[in-house]
Amino acid sequence: MTSDRSQAWQPEHLAIIGVGLLGGSVALAAKQRWPSLKVVGSSRKEETRQRMIELGIVDQAYADVETCVASADLIVVAAPVVQIASMLPMISAASPPDATITDVGSTKQAIVDAAELDAAAAARFVGSHPIAGSEKSGLEYAVANLFRGKHCIVTSTDRTDQKRLEQVSQFWRQLECRVVTMSPQQHDTALAAASHMPHIVAAALAQSLPMEFASLTGTGFNDTTRIAAGDPLMWRQIVEANASSVLDQLERFGSRLESFRDAIKRADWDGVERLFSDARTAKQQILRVVDRATSPDL
Amino acid sequence: MTSDRSQAWQPEHLAIIGVGLLGGSVALAAKQRWPSLKVVGSSRKEETRQRMIELGIVDQAYADVETCVASADLIVVAAPVVQIASMLPMISAASPPDATITDVGSTKQAIVDAAELDAAAAARFVGSHPIAGSEKSGLEYAVANLFRGKHCIVTSTDRTDQKRLEQVSQFWRQLECRVVTMSPQQHDTALAAASHMPHIVAAALAQSLPMEFASLTGTGFNDTTRIAAGDPLMWRQIVEANASSVLDQLERFGSRLESFRDAIKRADWDGVERLFSDARTAKQQILRVVDRATSPDL
Repeated sequence: MTSDRSQAWQPEHLAIIGVGLLGGSVALAAKQRWPSLKVVGSSRKEETRQRMIELGIVDQAYADVETCVASADLIVVAAPVVQIASMLPMISAASPPDATITDVGSTKQAIVDAAELDAAAAARFVGSHPIAGSEKSGLEYAVANLFRGKHCIVTSTDRTDQKRLEQVSQFWRQLECRVVTMSPQQHDTALAAASHMPHIVAAALAQSLPMEFASLTGTGFNDTTRIAAGDPLMWRQIVEANASSVLDQLERFGSRLESFRDAIKRADWDGVERLFSDARTAKQQILRVVDRATSPDL
Repeated sequence: MTSDRSQAWQPEHLAIIGVGLLGGSVALAAKQRWPSLKVVGSSRKEETRQRMIELGIVDQAYADVETCVASADLIVVAAPVVQIASMLPMISAASPPDATITDVGSTKQAIVDAAELDAAAAARFVGSHPIAGSEKSGLEYAVANLFRGKHCIVTSTDRTDQKRLEQVSQFWRQLECRVVTMSPQQHDTALAAASHMPHIVAAALAQSLPMEFASLTGTGFNDTTRIAAGDPLMWRQIVEANASSVLDQLERFGSRLESFRDAIKRADWDGVERLFSDARTAKQQILRVVDRATSPDL
């Protein structure tokens, strides 16, 4: 493991565009991995720029994205998903020709499609999505170990530069992610099922509780709806960027829910038990896969 | 607080019928509160009887319910919900006339209705539902602090004996529960929304994930589906005993989910953001109520 890591590609000058929970955590994790790495970050807000310096998250903070990326060899765009696509041509034009550009967006098809419309961006961009986060948001919650043991999806298309794909993969591996490569479309289908649709379900569930019963909720209800506290604007943008896969998965979920409703209406209690039993089996299988994925040996 | 507790009613001989996670935890919590309390328990399985003695959960273990309750002044029936109703006449007949009988069942209307059909049971039974538990089940997971800071619903009807209602309420308060009194019907409506329907939603969600994406789930998916690992037989019985309220709540949840689906189909992204925002507001309100309820001062 150590020898792999020492031979792997490493950045010397990392620029983070948008230093919030994710961008800040990338900066902290990279700084911990390579103490001599130069890390710079950008934010339009003066207050955020001050705070990222105070917290030791970056060495230098810029208001202007073009200045921020001018000397970087690796650029991580951690802006909201809807902004990433529109920023890529400008970032490509302003950064050194050898620089590699990646992101941390929760959707991939729209971002990669946009990158590939711009020749310079197409040559330098490799999409990433580290599956790590929190219902909290903002710089103050950034932590160096956010990515440890987590999966990171790195996207590959016909037009992806293979050398840069390898660099980006090595970067995430060295932040202790498990890297999985797939197409942007595969990513969006998978994440609709594993993340985006569940978020909508949790939100609908939080809303469906008559408030007079709030004090009677237990850990069951509260865990099931934890993610409903997420940032509405961020989730709007994720759903917008992945609408068709999200609708497909909502359909799939709806038909499972319908099976429960039908069995209850028919008073088919054996059927209800079978459905609960199938759900438990599925949950246990998922847990085994997740436990394996996050075990410290991997 | 201490003076209230010292003046409150206390049992001298507690019988637990069905010593699993909940029954075992009632025994441990009561023993901790009143070290000189005699605690006896029943189980049909020889192995469980041995284990409840080994773990120090009860002083004596019986195979036979009638012998177990013969000298008790408080009897807590912690059997599966479908068995509680049918056991109450037998328990009433076998226990001292002054004994108080309660339970820990997750549904109340069917159990209280059954108790009130039997004159002896009607006079002695007060329904309880401590809102505490785990996706785990069994004696081995019993802990003395399971009820601390949790709500316990105690049911009251026209036929409930007021002295026993007070005893049962004081019993749970001394196990550090917050006691709420309501009718069995109000209980079942509230719990359908706060617990039973969310369980079905979590189960449907666990089942709706294509298994090839299991490794890409994060803490969001896994918290949202945690309770899907619960015991299928227990949940079948809960849903069976509370079918009509569960169907009403499924309807309510379904219409919230439909609002999301409609807004996405119409590409009404402002509408999607508003729904996420409403959900976050609801979740935050619920969290404030829950935090207040479980704060150590109360």
